[in-house]
Amino acid sequence: MKQPKEITKAEGKLGVLLPGLGAVATTTIAGVMLARKNLALPIGSLTQLGTIRLGKRTDNRSPLIREFLPLASLDQLEFGGWDLFPDTAYESAKHAEVLEQRHLDLVKDELAQVTPMKAVFYPEYVKRLHGPHVKTGATKADMVEQVREDIRTFLKTKGCSRAVAVWCGSTEVYFPPGDVHQSIEAFEAGLARNDPGISNSQIYAWACLKERVPYANGAPNLTVDFPAAWDLAKKMEVPIAGKDFKTGQTLMKTIIAPGLKARMLGLAGWFSTNILGNRDGEVLDDPDSFKSKEVSKLGVLEYILQPHMYKDLYGKLYHKVRIEFYPPRGDAKEGWDNIDLFGWLGYPMQIKVNFLCRDSILAAPIVLDLALLMDLASRAGFSGTQEWLSFYFKSPMTAPNLYPEHDLFIQSMKLKNTMRWMMGEDLITHLGNEYYD
Amino acid sequence: MKQPKEITKAEGKLGVLLPGLGAVATTTIAGVMLARKNLALPIGSLTQLGTIRLGKRTDNRSPLIREFLPLASLDQLEFGGWDLFPDTAYESAKHAEVLEQRHLDLVKDELAQVTPMKAVFYPEYVKRLHGPHVKTGATKADMVEQVREDIRTFLKTKGCSRAVAVWCGSTEVYFPPGDVHQSIEAFEAGLARNDPGISNSQIYAWACLKERVPYANGAPNLTVDFPAAWDLAKKMEVPIAGKDFKTGQTLMKTIIAPGLKARMLGLAGWFSTNILGNRDGEVLDDPDSFKSKEVSKLGVLEYILQPHMYKDLYGKLYHKVRIEFYPPRGDAKEGWDNIDLFGWLGYPMQIKVNFLCRDSILAAPIVLDLALLMDLASRAGFSGTQEWLSFYFKSPMTAPNLYPEHDLFIQSMKLKNTMRWMMGEDLITHLGNEYYD
Amino acid sequence: MKQPKEITKAEGKLGVLLPGLGAVATTTIAGVMLARKNLALPIGSLTQLGTIRLGKRTDNRSPLIREFLPLASLDQLEFGGWDLFPDTAYESAKHAEVLEQRHLDLVKDELAQVTPMKAVFYPEYVKRLHGPHVKTGATKADMVEQVREDIRTFLKTKGCSRAVAVWCGSTEVYFPPGDVHQSIEAFEAGLARNDPGISNSQIYAWACLKERVPYANGAPNLTVDFPAAWDLAKKMEVPIAGKDFKTGQTLMKTIIAPGLKARMLGLAGWFSTNILGNRDGEVLDDPDSFKSKEVSKLGVLEYILQPHMYKDLYGKLYHKVRIEFYPPRGDAKEGWDNIDLFGWLGYPMQIKVNFLCRDSILAAPIVLDLALLMDLASRAGFSGTQEWLSFYFKSPMTAPNLYPEHDLFIQSMKLKNTMRWMMGEDLITHLGNEYYD
Amino acid sequence: MKQPKEITKAEGKLGVLLPGLGAVATTTIAGVMLARKNLALPIGSLTQLGTIRLGKRTDNRSPLIREFLPLASLDQLEFGGWDLFPDTAYESAKHAEVLEQRHLDLVKDELAQVTPMKAVFYPEYVKRLHGPHVKTGATKADMVEQVREDIRTFLKTKGCSRAVAVWCGSTEVYFPPGDVHQSIEAFEAGLARNDPGISNSQIYAWACLKERVPYANGAPNLTVDFPAAWDLAKKMEVPIAGKDFKTGQTLMKTIIAPGLKARMLGLAGWFSTNILGNRDGEVLDDPDSFKSKEVSKLGVLEYILQPHMYKDLYGKLYHKVRIEFYPPRGDAKEGWDNIDLFGWLGYPMQIKVNFLCRDSILAAPIVLDLALLMDLASRAGFSGTQEWLSFYFKSPMTAPNLYPEHDLFIQSMKLKNTMRWMMGEDLITHLGNEYYD
Ligand SMILES: NC(=O)c1ccc[n+]([C@@H]2O[C@H](COP(=O)([O-])OP(=O)(O)OC[C@H]3O[C@@H](n4cnc5c(N)ncnc54)[C@H](O)[C@@H]3O)[C@@H](O)[C@H]2O)c1
Ligand SMILES: NC(=O)c1ccc[n+]([C@@H]2O[C@H](COP(=O)([O-])OP(=O)(O)OC[C@H]3O[C@@H](n4cnc5c(N)ncnc54)[C@H](O)[C@@H]3O)[C@@H](O)[C@H]2O)c1
Ligand SMILES: NC(=O)c1ccc[n+]([C@@H]2O[C@H](COP(=O)([O-])OP(=O)(O)OC[C@H]3O[C@@H](n4cnc5c(N)ncnc54)[C@H](O)[C@@H]3O)[C@@H](O)[C@H]2O)c1
Ligand SMILES: NC(=O)c1ccc[n+]([C@@H]2O[C@H](COP(=O)([O-])OP(=O)(O)OC[C@H]3O[C@@H](n4cnc5c(N)ncnc54)[C@H](O)[C@@H]3O)[C@@H](O)[C@H]2O)c1
Ligand code: NA
Ligand code: NA
Repeated sequence: MKQPKEITKAEGKLGVLLPGLGAVATTTIAGVMLARKNLALPIGSLTQLGTIRLGKRTDNRSPLIREFLPLASLDQLEFGGWDLFPDTAYESAKHAEVLEQRHLDLVKDELAQVTPMKAVFYPEYVKRLHGPHVKTGATKADMVEQVREDIRTFLKTKGCSRAVAVWCGSTEVYFPPGDVHQSIEAFEAGLARNDPGISNSQIYAWACLKERVPYANGAPNLTVDFPAAWDLAKKMEVPIAGKDFKTGQTLMKTIIAPGLKARMLGLAGWFSTNILGNRDGEVLDDPDSFKSKEVSKLGVLEYILQPHMYKDLYGKLYHKVRIEFYPPRGDAKEGWDNIDLFGWLGYPMQIKVNFLCRDSILAAPIVLDLALLMDLASRAGFSGTQEWLSFYFKSPMTAPNLYPEHDLFIQSMKLKNTMRWMMGEDLITHLGNEYYD
Repeated sequence: MKQPKEITKAEGKLGVLLPGLGAVATTTIAGVMLARKNLALPIGSLTQLGTIRLGKRTDNRSPLIREFLPLASLDQLEFGGWDLFPDTAYESAKHAEVLEQRHLDLVKDELAQVTPMKAVFYPEYVKRLHGPHVKTGATKADMVEQVREDIRTFLKTKGCSRAVAVWCGSTEVYFPPGDVHQSIEAFEAGLARNDPGISNSQIYAWACLKERVPYANGAPNLTVDFPAAWDLAKKMEVPIAGKDFKTGQTLMKTIIAPGLKARMLGLAGWFSTNILGNRDGEVLDDPDSFKSKEVSKLGVLEYILQPHMYKDLYGKLYHKVRIEFYPPRGDAKEGWDNIDLFGWLGYPMQIKVNFLCRDSILAAPIVLDLALLMDLASRAGFSGTQEWLSFYFKSPMTAPNLYPEHDLFIQSMKLKNTMRWMMGEDLITHLGNEYYD
Repeated sequence: MKQPKEITKAEGKLGVLLPGLGAVATTTIAGVMLARKNLALPIGSLTQLGTIRLGKRTDNRSPLIREFLPLASLDQLEFGGWDLFPDTAYESAKHAEVLEQRHLDLVKDELAQVTPMKAVFYPEYVKRLHGPHVKTGATKADMVEQVREDIRTFLKTKGCSRAVAVWCGSTEVYFPPGDVHQSIEAFEAGLARNDPGISNSQIYAWACLKERVPYANGAPNLTVDFPAAWDLAKKMEVPIAGKDFKTGQTLMKTIIAPGLKARMLGLAGWFSTNILGNRDGEVLDDPDSFKSKEVSKLGVLEYILQPHMYKDLYGKLYHKVRIEFYPPRGDAKEGWDNIDLFGWLGYPMQIKVNFLCRDSILAAPIVLDLALLMDLASRAGFSGTQEWLSFYFKSPMTAPNLYPEHDLFIQSMKLKNTMRWMMGEDLITHLGNEYYD
Repeated sequence: MKQPKEITKAEGKLGVLLPGLGAVATTTIAGVMLARKNLALPIGSLTQLGTIRLGKRTDNRSPLIREFLPLASLDQLEFGGWDLFPDTAYESAKHAEVLEQRHLDLVKDELAQVTPMKAVFYPEYVKRLHGPHVKTGATKADMVEQVREDIRTFLKTKGCSRAVAVWCGSTEVYFPPGDVHQSIEAFEAGLARNDPGISNSQIYAWACLKERVPYANGAPNLTVDFPAAWDLAKKMEVPIAGKDFKTGQTLMKTIIAPGLKARMLGLAGWFSTNILGNRDGEVLDDPDSFKSKEVSKLGVLEYILQPHMYKDLYGKLYHKVRIEFYPPRGDAKEGWDNIDLFGWLGYPMQIKVNFLCRDSILAAPIVLDLALLMDLASRAGFSGTQEWLSFYFKSPMTAPNLYPEHDLFIQSMKLKNTMRWMMGEDLITHLGNEYYD
């Protein structure tokens, strides 16, 4: 990754393409529409509300990130997407029951104009959904071409100079990468012969990369996280990022665990239960999906705590995660964590955390930030995996030989120092010895 | 603060002098004795269990801190202290009811040999205590001399090459610095005329600085945090640090608040209640002491959240802290926090944190780390306020023109980068662009 | 109290007079209006939703209470009230922010027609309120006459056959009963000479009793709980009841404590904290009011646990209650309880209860039930203190020589057996030996 | 069930026979030994600490239950039992890690003298256990005879006049009653031909009934809850009772649910999770056992809430129970409940209950009470199912045509009124009209 000499300006309209116009996508779109009318604030968005400290603590130089970086402005965004249901973003948002009616009313017309393009939808990757608004085509290669055509048409019709994509579709069934995923050639051959290893989300991703549209993935599926996609991203010079938006209980875990570890407090057990009642929860009610989501959530502590290095502290940690479909909770989600820690001489203590959270409310600002920062990365000449965006993901993509960094504070440091570095500013180390000369 | 060319070796015995041989001090001493016999682990101590990453992520260079830095080893420590009660460390530890009898039994004899020197104790600074084991003297200047004499005798008798001090005495009544605290001359004149503005802890501190014994302060009183003390520390070339060990609810607050802020989530309210039943709680049951402890705890969020910079997010935060004496909780302490946060478009969420903690268990490793790191600082030629040790304090001392840094993660970064810098290693910025060349 | 031979039928309209048209009163009124239009259910109302088991378990006779008892129906209710603010019930309900706008919209016109009569308001009894809509009069005796006149006018204008009153006004400053409260004569002399011991609520109560309007008191003030009121109620043959609606944390306490006691589990400590942000909380933010509410809440456990009889179990219970004004909580209220219990051989356990409750939502059905049951009591010929209604109160009024019964389950048994007894049905003892013949 | 004319005195020693000398049994035995030496209190035992109100509230007649009823005293108890491990009660108690060493030390010798008789153990009913201390015999009928012989020998050797049994063995695999369980004849034929439908616990039970030893069952298996056992109990005139000691989360549920129901508050959801780390938890870690325990716990709310009668309040309740093996919790157990309730007009509220409990500590006093009360029942001439002891069970046995009563307060009323009735005292109805004459 090279320090950019110059970053292309954010001129013209930026298309924000969201495969999957469900709860997260429509909450994002409605929120941006409200924010640009000054009817609500895009809280949770680092690019919109965050500042960045430059120079010394005594310099008092902390511009807003959106004034420091040459980002696209909210006014320049043009939303589009695909879904297997033909509902407009307004109808879909109503159905999702995330935002209150009084908020939807304020941007009803605008929202209703965001209509999904027909989906690429082979049903074997999301078993519980059945929708009519789907493309037909002989091969997966045809599907890629249709999506590419969609993108070009969208850009032209809406007058956009460029686009980014963020996957907001349902979580797909888990399957490990196979031979077909190992090289560009193998993958393209697979597309042509309808290889069952190629999922819907990968078809969208391939089309985007071919069109040089940066692609970020908000779900745990492998979408752009396999060798062929890495290679294509490099070859086409497009940034990619993922996986799984970091929200809720996992967000809290990546806040608390690094704190306890910083203080070298031991952990004997961490029990996490989640209750959630929305469509996403219903999908996850299938034991296999639950299982896979649970397993994926388990890794987080492993990487943060480094039990191989801290055997006495974390070598015997018993970590258990449960996800429970519980309809009364509705779109909200609730986490309860019991943490069994121990201190000096092994004496035990306990922490309980009860998080009454709102999933899509936490995910929407991530979608916005990813759209803006992926576009920036592209204009800065970055391509391939954008590890500096780990901050936003439960399961961050990294270079093949690196372990993922899950500590939110290291992620935040990495993110902000990358911003400073992109703009030629000094990196911050918090050493600060100079104040004591 | 200058990068040390050379750090004097940790040769000979290090005296660890603790004014106040109560719960925290005796838990520390007993723990070190157990640890050096390999009967228990000094969990929570960064110097004993921590590692430090050097170089790149792919270098796999992460030595133990105690092997990286030239610290005194546990075997080299010799404990001493002062108290107004003549109980030995063994008796005092039994009384404190922090450690279980089975642990005390294992080091009973050694512990019983730690007997307090007579205290400097003018009772107006700690109203609820009355003890017989106190010095007499005509003036506070005499008291300083007696303490200096104690230190010299201790070093000689025990065969120590040097010493450090960590204040573990009761919290003193709050009073703001006055004229007498503004310069070395004013303070020494005050000592001579028994100025009421000079408290017990300040007398100990002054004696230590005169003897070039580094001094860290674990209580919220001002002990070494006033201009005369800063000047004397510089003049005598002694490191000083403080105030108030960071444990319990405040520790959790400095973990969670930075996490929420990193994600630009807003805060409408934070209500914290504490229930505690030990002697410290009983002392704090006097409304004024409670009040002052509560007030001191409120500042933490203010500094972390920077409401002046983030008005929309933190400008209206309603923060309330309560400390309640509740005898059934015994030496344990319990915190309950209710956090009202808000996200995208202002939608509300809640977090509840219930911390069943053990105060002295969390404080003991801090005492140990401070003793070792203050000694190191001294051998590295550092003097005056050691801001890099903010990590350990609720209310960190800083250079006069700087705001204190309360974010545990920034504090940890500062601490570890200072360690790297002392030893001539590269600082870590988490940029990591080189992995993507 | 005599078993009624006959209960007068509930014919004609029943006036429900509420001094204090604030949050609780308007939530009650709006709810009744919605319920009689079948737009919402009066959940929490035993008279509306409850059933009562008659005869043996195998008889399967469990009629709805409202079909079993000759109660007035919701359609027969006509609401009125007094307040020092001239806002209609609609405006006041909007201000209170308890019910959502979508609910208020459905009964807007009807609600707007409920307008308060001018208040009796000597400001020294509620220091933080200042309102324009108040009566003038030379003496408190005059005030009584004006309220009596209000009642007669109301009955006539609205075509009601009778009325009941439930005090829903603000909590008054605490003061103990004095000489003026000891007899009817003393009280009437006091009214005539403006005795400062006579509060606003007592003036309303006196007027109601004179008009033979049953009077229940939802606040902790003494309103109808002093000898002169007891005597007048008996003399006029009017039922009275009180004090302080049982909602929130105290409700939970009177559920959990009897359960633990039934199992002879010991209690070492019970710490309760409440955070609330509405007008009631603001009033209680004055330390004296807080104090008095806290003190009043403490008695509950004392009576349930009977520490004089169970010294080993409850003799050393440390019970602490805190009420904290915390604006972010809004009209909702939140309780956190920590219960330190002990079992077999004294081994300790803990229970934590976190109640996210809505005060007025819990109080409204109590107002409705009290109105209907007090009217029934009157028609059944009951007069004076109605201890069988203890179920609804935090601090139940009883005969002078009796201790109040706080256990919700005993209260419920008393309530339901009284209902059976009124109607000539067998009392239930849960013996049930006959099933095993 | 007939009111006893006379109750045989509790003369001589009472054998308390416990099949299964594990955590619960040894905690009970050690506790009784400590209690009779006045070294600890048998807290949680209604028979030992409880009082019973007789007559009117103003009579002040509330004797201790153990002085009111002719119960055996603790000094008269002689403990015995069976287990597949030969450990003495002392060794087993140490292994269980329920009681602290300092308690066990005080009764070590006495405890060590309680040695188990060889177990009846067909392993297919408890798959995870394998122990050497087992009987051999050709048929299950032989086994019954061997256990009968054990009982007779025990009585003789220890000089007991009579005995009672309480099943404290591991939970057996669930299987529904079959033909073999329908009559005495069928069952005895089954014993003779080793019918696989007859489990270990049923063999013990049959032997006890034959020896006229009252039998209470602390586990969820059907042990004495099938027609043949009911008939034999009647024929032999022996009391029987069960099933599953009521402790922990279910205890809390049967306290809180009746309270909410008494107030006619609706329930939308109740989510319960349990984490436990002892041997019982390990056994339950087998999915099928978990499943069956979970299912059995679900019924509790159904019976308390009567959704068929209260459709609007409880007709849509979503109730979910999870049990999770979590080793760090050790012998302690922790429950977390989230209750979604709704009040007036359907407005939602939430209650969270976190119970840090100790299972065996809660179960031990139940074993003691059951032993004493079953013996009393026998001497009072009661036989067959003792529904009045429902108070102690999660899943109470009743007459075939009756639904079980789960409400702890009704159970307590039933228990105490039965005690009054046995002794010829007036039943209590809490009517109390006479205080208002
Ligand atoms: N909300 C969060 O906090 C959060 C956190 C992490 C990850 N996620 C992930 O984000 C994604 C979206 O979550 P959501 O809550 O909006 O779910 P949702 O079910 O509301 O929306 C998903 C949408 O994707 C559509 N879809 C599925 N397959 C498609 C396809 N092949 N092409 C086009 N559309 C398709 C569905 O029809 C649906 O409208 C999920 O994968 C979820 O796991 C969400
Ligand atoms: N435990 C924690 O987590 C924690 C956290 C932050 C700060 N602290 C602070 O650490 C200090 C020690 O806490 P503790 O729990 O050990 O309290 P403690 O009461 O057990 O011990 C304090 C000891 O200081 C002695 N003392 C008081 N004045 C003295 C004097 N002038 N000279 C000599 N001895 C004196 C007392 O006699 C007592 O033995 C307190 O100030 C406390 O506020 C503790
Ligand atoms: N909400 C609950 O759960 C609950 C529980 C127990 C008791 N209470 C009690 O119920 C009462 C009402 O509570 P609320 O939440 O409706 O309070 P509120 O402040 O919303 O309403 C009280 C109303 O009484 C009026 N008022 C005061 N003095 C008056 C007077 N002399 N004459 C006429 N009107 C007068 C005020 O103007 C106000 O409109 C309070 O005393 C409260 O303590 C409420
Ligand atoms: N502790 C509680 O709160 C609680 C509550 C409800 C029910 N229970 C039930 O009580 C029973 C005992 O619980 P525990 O915690 O003591 O378990 P435990 O595992 O400590 O003890 C059970 C003992 O039974 C023995 N056993 C098994 N099968 C046997 C047989 N056929 N004959 C003789 N001995 C046999 C085992 O060897 C073991 O020693 C379990 O069934 C449990 O489900 C316990
Ligand atoms: Na990697
Ligand atoms: Na009374």
